[in-house]
Amino acid sequence: MNVDYINPFLEAAINVVKTMAFIMPQQCGRPYLKKREDLTKYDVTGIIGLTGHEKGSIAVSFSKKCILRIIKGMLGEEKYYIDAEVRDAVGELTNMIAGDGRRILSLKGYSFEASIPTVVVGPDHYIEHKTKGAIIVIPFKIEDDPFFVEACFEK
Amino acid sequence: MNVDYINPFLEAAINVVKTMAFIMPQQCGRPYLKKREDLTKYDVTGIIGLTGHEKGSIAVSFSKKCILRIIKGMLGEEKYYIDAEVRDAVGELTNMIAGDGRRILSLKGYSFEASIPTVVVGPDHYIEHKTKGAIIVIPFKIEDDPFFVEACFEK
Repeated sequence: MNVDYINPFLEAAINVVKTMAFIMPQQCGRPYLKKREDLTKYDVTGIIGLTGHEKGSIAVSFSKKCILRIIKGMLGEEKYYIDAEVRDAVGELTNMIAGDGRRILSLKGYSFEASIPTVVVGPDHYIEHKTKGAIIVIPFKIEDDPFFVEACFEK
Repeated sequence: MNVDYINPFLEAAINVVKTMAFIMPQQCGRPYLKKREDLTKYDVTGIIGLTGHEKGSIAVSFSKKCILRIIKGMLGEEKYYIDAEVRDAVGELTNMIAGDGRRILSLKGYSFEASIPTVVVGPDHYIEHKTKGAIIVIPFKIEDDPFFVEACFEK
């Protein structure tokens, strides 16, 4: 993977969560390569496909506690489960992180288009990106609750 | 949604499963519009984003029993759970259904590009496509075990 692709999505995730939820997400560790045997479990994930300069995909995955913290920041309202409004917010956050990442990438001369986002809900689901290229995981937390941005491309 | 978009993915799903697994999938009912409150649960789903003529996304979702039947046809081998080889097959089937659908659409003058496929695994997950446009569900079964092709676009 072109290392130029990593920082735009790292910056984008911070920008979007900070702007939308008034919460500063903390990075928990450096970005790392996702291994095939890494079946980390998530509660809700937004997925968006990329085409253009290269094929790719972006996934933004949250623990339930983490997305409910973000929702509280976004809507000023305490929620206790992943309802339709939370799912909409996950779609919107995914769209905005992919969009802001693409904006930063375009400044570096890489032009990408994005598909419609899909939101997956289910306790303990895991995801695999079907590429021969590297898959980068950018780990964040809000208090102690994790969320992950995964980016992968063809090469 | 442009109704021209429905049949290509219906044909593609039949073509791909028939060719790859030597099984003729049966349609179980006509394609229908997915409602917002339809939270049908799946065991494994392949998702692929589309761009080009319009933004879109395609999801191919299986019950565990259905994908294991298809795998038996593809590999000639009985499997009892969704392992790495099954996940690869879901990615490949999704890629091929999206690819064959795009091929048929291009013959009608609609050109689409596809992203890298993502495979989601987790018992009882459900998915939502974040679009204001229609979401079409094309329901199939193999014996009594269901699989679904979902296609959505912007308009």
